[in-house]
Amino acid sequence: MAEPLHFEDFAVGRRFRCGTRRVDAEAIKAFARDYDPQPFHVDDAKAADSFFKGLAASGWHTAAMCMRLLVDGLPIAGGIISAGGTLEWKLPVRPGDTLGVEAEVLEARASRSRPEQGLVKLRISTRNQHGEDVQVFSPTVFVPRRASAGAGA
Amino acid sequence: MAEPLHFEDFAVGRRFRCGTRRVDAEAIKAFARDYDPQPFHVDDAKAADSFFKGLAASGWHTAAMCMRLLVDGLPIAGGIISAGGTLEWKLPVRPGDTLGVEAEVLEARASRSRPEQGLVKLRISTRNQHGEDVQVFSPTVFVPRRASAGAGA
Repeated sequence: MAEPLHFEDFAVGRRFRCGTRRVDAEAIKAFARDYDPQPFHVDDAKAADSFFKGLAASGWHTAAMCMRLLVDGLPIAGGIISAGGTLEWKLPVRPGDTLGVEAEVLEARASRSRPEQGLVKLRISTRNQHGEDVQVFSPTVFVPRRASAGAGA
Repeated sequence: MAEPLHFEDFAVGRRFRCGTRRVDAEAIKAFARDYDPQPFHVDDAKAADSFFKGLAASGWHTAAMCMRLLVDGLPIAGGIISAGGTLEWKLPVRPGDTLGVEAEVLEARASRSRPEQGLVKLRISTRNQHGEDVQVFSPTVFVPRRASAGAGA
Protein backbone atom coordinates (compact mmCIF):
# COMPACT_ATOMS: atom_id res chain seq x y z
CA MET A 1 0.00 0.00 0.00
CA ALA A 2 1.28 3.44 -0.90
CA GLU A 3 1.93 6.15 1.70
CA PRO A 4 -1.41 7.40 3.08
CA LEU A 5 -2.68 10.62 1.55
CA HIS A 6 -3.35 13.69 3.67
CA PHE A 7 -5.16 16.95 3.00
CA GLU A 8 -1.95 18.60 1.81
CA ASP A 9 -1.73 16.05 -1.03
CA PHE A 10 -5.05 17.14 -2.55
CA ALA A 11 -4.10 20.07 -4.74
CA VAL A 12 -6.96 21.33 -6.87
CA GLY A 13 -6.70 19.74 -10.31
CA ARG A 14 -4.65 16.75 -9.20
CA ARG A 15 -5.90 13.46 -10.55
CA PHE A 16 -5.57 10.03 -8.96
CA ARG A 17 -5.96 6.98 -11.16
CA CYS A 18 -7.11 3.72 -9.56
CA GLY A 19 -7.02 0.19 -10.94
CA THR A 20 -9.52 -1.58 -13.18
CA ARG A 21 -12.12 -4.29 -12.76
CA ARG A 22 -13.79 -6.49 -15.37
CA VAL A 23 -17.54 -6.99 -15.09
CA ASP A 24 -19.17 -10.21 -16.21
CA ALA A 25 -22.81 -11.19 -16.59
CA GLU A 26 -22.78 -13.47 -13.55
CA ALA A 27 -21.50 -10.70 -11.28
CA ILE A 28 -24.16 -8.32 -12.61
CA LYS A 29 -26.91 -10.86 -11.91
CA ALA A 30 -25.56 -11.90 -8.50
CA PHE A 31 -25.50 -8.33 -7.17
CA ALA A 32 -28.91 -7.63 -8.65
CA ARG A 33 -30.50 -10.74 -7.18
CA ASP A 34 -29.57 -9.45 -3.74
CA TYR A 35 -30.18 -5.73 -4.10
CA ASP A 36 -31.87 -4.73 -7.37
CA PRO A 37 -33.73 -7.72 -8.87
CA GLN A 38 -35.30 -5.90 -11.78
CA PRO A 39 -35.63 -7.90 -15.03
CA PHE A 40 -33.05 -5.82 -16.93
CA HIS A 41 -30.41 -6.66 -14.31
CA VAL A 42 -31.07 -10.38 -13.88
CA ASP A 43 -32.60 -11.82 -17.07
CA ASP A 44 -30.93 -11.59 -20.49
CA ALA A 45 -34.09 -12.09 -22.52
CA LYS A 46 -36.18 -9.58 -20.58
CA ALA A 47 -33.24 -7.15 -20.57
CA ALA A 48 -33.07 -7.28 -24.38
CA ASP A 49 -36.67 -6.09 -24.50
CA SER A 50 -36.24 -3.36 -21.86
CA PHE A 51 -35.24 0.30 -21.64
CA PHE A 52 -31.62 -0.86 -21.50
CA LYS A 53 -31.80 -3.07 -24.64
CA GLY A 54 -29.64 -5.70 -23.03
CA LEU A 55 -28.33 -6.77 -19.64
CA ALA A 56 -26.99 -3.83 -17.64
CA ALA A 57 -25.48 -3.60 -14.17
CA SER A 58 -27.51 -2.01 -11.38
CA GLY A 59 -26.29 1.52 -10.86
CA TRP A 60 -25.67 0.55 -7.23
CA HIS A 61 -23.45 -2.27 -8.40
CA THR A 62 -21.48 0.20 -10.49
CA ALA A 63 -21.20 2.47 -7.47
CA ALA A 64 -20.06 -0.42 -5.27
CA MET A 65 -17.42 -1.52 -7.81
CA CYS A 66 -16.20 2.08 -8.04
CA MET A 67 -15.88 2.16 -4.25
CA ARG A 68 -13.83 -1.03 -4.25
CA LEU A 69 -11.43 0.46 -6.80
CA LEU A 70 -11.12 3.58 -4.62
CA VAL A 71 -10.49 1.60 -1.45
CA ASP A 72 -7.76 -0.36 -3.24
CA GLY A 73 -6.26 2.60 -5.08
CA LEU A 74 -6.75 5.85 -3.15
CA PRO A 75 -5.16 5.40 0.30
CA ILE A 76 -6.52 8.38 2.22
CA ALA A 77 -5.28 8.48 5.82
CA GLY A 78 -8.08 7.32 8.10
CA GLY A 79 -10.10 5.93 5.21
CA ILE A 80 -12.44 7.19 2.51
CA ILE A 81 -15.22 8.88 4.46
CA SER A 82 -17.91 11.09 2.99
CA ALA A 83 -21.38 12.38 3.75
CA GLY A 84 -22.38 11.97 0.10
CA GLY A 85 -22.60 13.97 -3.09
CA THR A 86 -24.10 14.03 -6.54
CA LEU A 87 -24.30 10.66 -8.25
CA GLU A 88 -24.87 10.43 -12.00
CA TRP A 89 -25.24 7.33 -14.12
CA LYS A 90 -24.26 8.24 -17.67
CA LEU A 91 -24.21 4.98 -19.62
CA PRO A 92 -25.15 1.36 -18.92
CA VAL A 93 -22.43 -1.00 -17.69
CA ARG A 94 -22.47 -4.17 -19.79
CA PRO A 95 -21.12 -7.69 -19.36
CA GLY A 96 -17.52 -7.71 -20.54
CA ASP A 97 -16.89 -4.05 -19.70
CA THR A 98 -13.70 -3.18 -17.86
CA LEU A 99 -14.18 -0.30 -15.45
CA GLY A 100 -11.53 2.12 -14.30
CA VAL A 101 -11.75 4.99 -11.83
CA GLU A 102 -10.14 8.41 -11.78
CA ALA A 103 -10.60 10.99 -9.01
CA GLU A 104 -9.96 14.65 -9.72
CA VAL A 105 -9.67 17.26 -6.99
CA LEU A 106 -12.28 19.98 -7.58
CA GLU A 107 -11.99 21.91 -4.30
CA ALA A 108 -9.99 21.67 -1.08
CA ARG A 109 -10.66 23.73 2.03
CA ALA A 110 -9.95 23.67 5.73
CA SER A 111 -12.69 22.55 8.08
CA ARG A 112 -13.85 25.32 10.39
CA SER A 113 -15.29 22.99 12.98
CA ARG A 114 -12.45 20.43 12.94
CA PRO A 115 -9.08 22.08 12.35
CA GLU A 116 -7.29 18.74 12.17
CA GLN A 117 -9.00 17.90 8.90
CA GLY A 118 -9.89 19.33 5.53
CA LEU A 119 -12.79 18.91 3.15
CA VAL A 120 -11.97 17.78 -0.36
CA LYS A 121 -14.49 17.76 -3.17
CA LEU A 122 -13.70 15.11 -5.76
CA ARG A 123 -15.07 14.27 -9.16
CA ILE A 124 -14.84 10.50 -9.27
CA SER A 125 -15.29 9.25 -12.82
CA THR A 126 -15.91 5.58 -13.50
CA ARG A 127 -15.12 4.85 -17.13
CA ASN A 128 -15.47 1.84 -19.39
CA GLN A 129 -12.81 0.42 -21.69
CA HIS A 130 -13.80 2.98 -24.37
CA GLY A 131 -12.94 5.84 -22.00
CA GLU A 132 -16.60 6.78 -21.64
CA ASP A 133 -17.95 7.94 -18.28
CA VAL A 134 -20.47 5.41 -17.03
CA GLN A 135 -20.83 7.05 -13.62
CA VAL A 136 -19.70 10.33 -12.08
CA PHE A 137 -19.85 10.76 -8.31
CA SER A 138 -18.89 14.11 -6.79
CA PRO A 139 -18.59 13.72 -3.03
CA THR A 140 -16.93 15.83 -0.40
CA VAL A 141 -14.55 13.64 1.58
CA PHE A 142 -13.01 14.27 5.00
CA VAL A 143 -9.23 14.17 4.88
CA PRO A 144 -6.87 14.54 7.89
CA ARG A 145 -4.22 17.24 7.73
CA ARG A 146 -0.67 15.98 7.81
CA ALA A 147 0.38 18.58 10.35
CA SER A 148 -2.00 17.14 12.91
CA ALA A 149 -0.94 13.52 12.45
CA GLY A 150 -0.40 11.98 15.83
CA ALA A 151 -1.75 14.98 17.70
CA GLY A 152 -4.61 12.90 19.05
CA ALA A 153 -7.76 14.17 20.70
CA MET B 1 -47.53 -7.21 -6.53
CA ALA B 2 -49.66 -4.09 -6.53
CA GLU B 3 -50.92 -2.45 -9.72
CA PRO B 4 -47.96 -0.79 -11.51
CA LEU B 5 -47.62 2.94 -10.90
CA HIS B 6 -47.69 5.41 -13.79
CA PHE B 7 -46.82 9.09 -14.06
CA GLU B 8 -50.38 10.11 -13.22
CA ASP B 9 -50.02 8.42 -9.82
CA PHE B 10 -47.15 10.70 -8.76
CA ALA B 11 -48.91 13.77 -7.38
CA VAL B 12 -46.53 16.22 -5.75
CA GLY B 13 -46.49 15.59 -2.02
CA ARG B 14 -47.67 11.99 -2.24
CA ARG B 15 -45.66 9.58 -0.10
CA PHE B 16 -45.04 5.91 -0.72
CA ARG B 17 -43.98 3.74 2.19
CA CYS B 18 -41.97 0.59 1.46
CA GLY B 19 -41.20 -2.37 3.72
CA THR B 20 -38.40 -2.79 6.25
CA ARG B 21 -35.16 -4.73 6.47
CA ARG B 22 -33.11 -5.66 9.50
CA VAL B 23 -29.34 -5.25 9.24
CA ASP B 24 -26.97 -7.52 11.11
CA ALA B 25 -23.21 -7.41 11.60
CA GLU B 26 -22.54 -10.33 9.28
CA ALA B 27 -24.42 -8.67 6.39
CA ILE B 28 -22.51 -5.43 6.97
CA LYS B 29 -19.18 -7.27 6.86
CA ALA B 30 -20.09 -9.49 3.90
CA PHE B 31 -21.03 -6.53 1.69
CA ALA B 32 -17.96 -4.60 2.80
CA ARG B 33 -15.57 -7.48 2.15
CA ASP B 34 -16.69 -7.42 -1.50
CA TYR B 35 -17.07 -3.71 -2.13
CA ASP B 36 -15.80 -1.50 0.71
CA PRO B 37 -13.29 -3.40 2.87
CA GLN B 38 -12.33 -0.53 5.15
CA PRO B 39 -11.63 -1.47 8.79
CA PHE B 40 -14.71 0.31 10.17
CA HIS B 41 -16.97 -1.83 7.95
CA VAL B 42 -15.34 -5.25 8.49
CA ASP B 43 -13.62 -5.35 11.90
CA ASP B 44 -15.42 -4.68 15.20
CA ALA B 45 -12.30 -3.78 17.18
CA LYS B 46 -10.87 -1.43 14.56
CA ALA B 47 -14.32 0.07 14.02
CA ALA B 48 -14.59 0.92 17.72
CA ASP B 49 -11.41 2.98 17.41
CA SER B 50 -12.45 4.72 14.15
CA PHE B 51 -14.34 7.81 13.03
CA PHE B 52 -17.54 5.76 13.33
CA LYS B 53 -16.91 4.57 16.92
CA GLY B 54 -18.28 1.14 16.13
CA LEU B 55 -19.13 -1.09 13.19
CA ALA B 56 -21.11 0.79 10.53
CA ALA B 57 -22.50 -0.29 7.18
CA SER B 58 -20.85 0.97 4.02
CA GLY B 59 -22.92 3.82 2.62
CA TRP B 60 -23.14 1.81 -0.60
CA HIS B 61 -24.61 -1.09 1.35
CA THR B 62 -27.23 1.24 2.79
CA ALA B 63 -27.96 2.49 -0.73
CA ALA B 64 -28.24 -1.07 -2.03
CA MET B 65 -30.59 -2.11 0.78
CA CYS B 66 -32.71 0.98 0.11
CA MET B 67 -32.90 -0.02 -3.56
CA ARG B 68 -34.07 -3.50 -2.66
CA LEU B 69 -36.86 -2.06 -0.50
CA LEU B 70 -37.88 0.19 -3.40
CA VAL B 71 -37.88 -2.66 -5.93
CA ASP B 72 -40.07 -4.70 -3.59
CA GLY B 73 -42.34 -1.84 -2.54
CA LEU B 74 -42.63 0.79 -5.27
CA PRO B 75 -43.93 -0.94 -8.41
CA ILE B 76 -43.33 1.67 -11.10
CA ALA B 77 -44.43 0.50 -14.56
CA GLY B 78 -41.35 -0.46 -16.54
CA GLY B 79 -39.12 -0.47 -13.47
CA ILE B 80 -37.29 2.00 -11.28
CA ILE B 81 -34.97 3.78 -13.70
CA SER B 82 -32.99 6.91 -12.96
CA ALA B 83 -29.94 8.81 -14.15
CA GLY B 84 -29.00 9.62 -10.55
CA GLY B 85 -29.41 12.39 -8.01
CA THR B 86 -28.09 13.74 -4.76
CA LEU B 87 -27.10 11.11 -2.23
CA GLU B 88 -26.61 12.03 1.43
CA TRP B 89 -25.53 9.81 4.28
CA LYS B 90 -26.86 11.33 7.50
CA LEU B 91 -26.12 8.79 10.23
CA PRO B 92 -24.27 5.47 10.49
CA VAL B 93 -26.24 2.26 9.99
CA ARG B 94 -25.46 -0.13 12.86
CA PRO B 95 -25.84 -3.87 13.43
CA GLY B 96 -29.37 -4.48 14.68
CA ASP B 97 -30.87 -1.48 12.93
CA THR B 98 -34.12 -1.97 11.03
CA LEU B 99 -34.31 0.21 7.94
CA GLY B 100 -37.45 1.47 6.28
CA VAL B 101 -37.89 3.54 3.14
CA GLU B 102 -40.32 6.31 2.26
CA ALA B 103 -40.43 8.08 -1.11
CA GLU B 104 -42.03 11.52 -1.36
CA VAL B 105 -42.87 13.16 -4.69
CA LEU B 106 -41.07 16.52 -4.92
CA GLU B 107 -41.74 17.35 -8.57
CA ALA B 108 -43.50 15.78 -11.55
CA ARG B 109 -43.27 17.05 -15.10
CA ALA B 110 -43.81 15.83 -18.62
CA SER B 111 -40.79 14.88 -20.68
CA ARG B 112 -40.30 17.17 -23.67
CA SER B 113 -38.23 14.67 -25.62
CA ARG B 114 -40.31 11.59 -24.81
CA PRO B 115 -44.02 12.43 -24.54
CA GLU B 116 -44.89 8.89 -23.45
CA GLN B 117 -43.14 9.41 -20.14
CA GLY B 118 -42.76 11.85 -17.29
CA LEU B 119 -39.94 12.82 -14.99
CA VAL B 120 -40.56 12.49 -11.28
CA LYS B 121 -38.22 13.85 -8.65
CA LEU B 122 -38.39 11.88 -5.44
CA ARG B 123 -36.96 12.33 -1.98
CA ILE B 124 -36.22 8.79 -0.87
CA SER B 125 -35.60 8.68 2.86
CA THR B 126 -34.08 5.61 4.46
CA ARG B 127 -34.78 5.67 8.18
CA ASN B 128 -33.75 3.56 11.13
CA GLN B 129 -36.03 2.16 13.83
CA HIS B 130 -35.84 5.48 15.68
CA GLY B 131 -37.32 7.31 12.70
CA GLU B 132 -34.01 9.04 11.96
CA ASP B 133 -32.89 9.58 8.38
CA VAL B 134 -29.75 7.54 7.74
CA GLN B 135 -29.71 8.28 4.01
CA VAL B 136 -31.58 10.63 1.70
CA PHE B 137 -31.42 10.07 -2.06
CA SER B 138 -33.15 12.54 -4.36
CA PRO B 139 -33.22 11.11 -7.87
CA THR B 140 -35.27 11.96 -10.90
CA VAL B 141 -36.94 8.79 -12.15
CA PHE B 142 -38.46 8.08 -15.56
CA VAL B 143 -42.11 7.04 -15.29
CA PRO B 144 -44.38 6.00 -18.19
CA ARG B 145 -47.65 7.87 -18.65
CA ARG B 146 -50.74 5.76 -18.28
CA ALA B 147 -52.36 7.31 -21.37
CA SER B 148 -49.61 5.92 -23.56
CA ALA B 149 -49.74 2.39 -22.18
CA GLY B 150 -49.78 -0.08 -25.05
CA ALA B 151 -49.18 2.60 -27.68
CA GLY B 152 -45.88 0.97 -28.61
CA ALA B 153 -43.15 2.46 -30.73
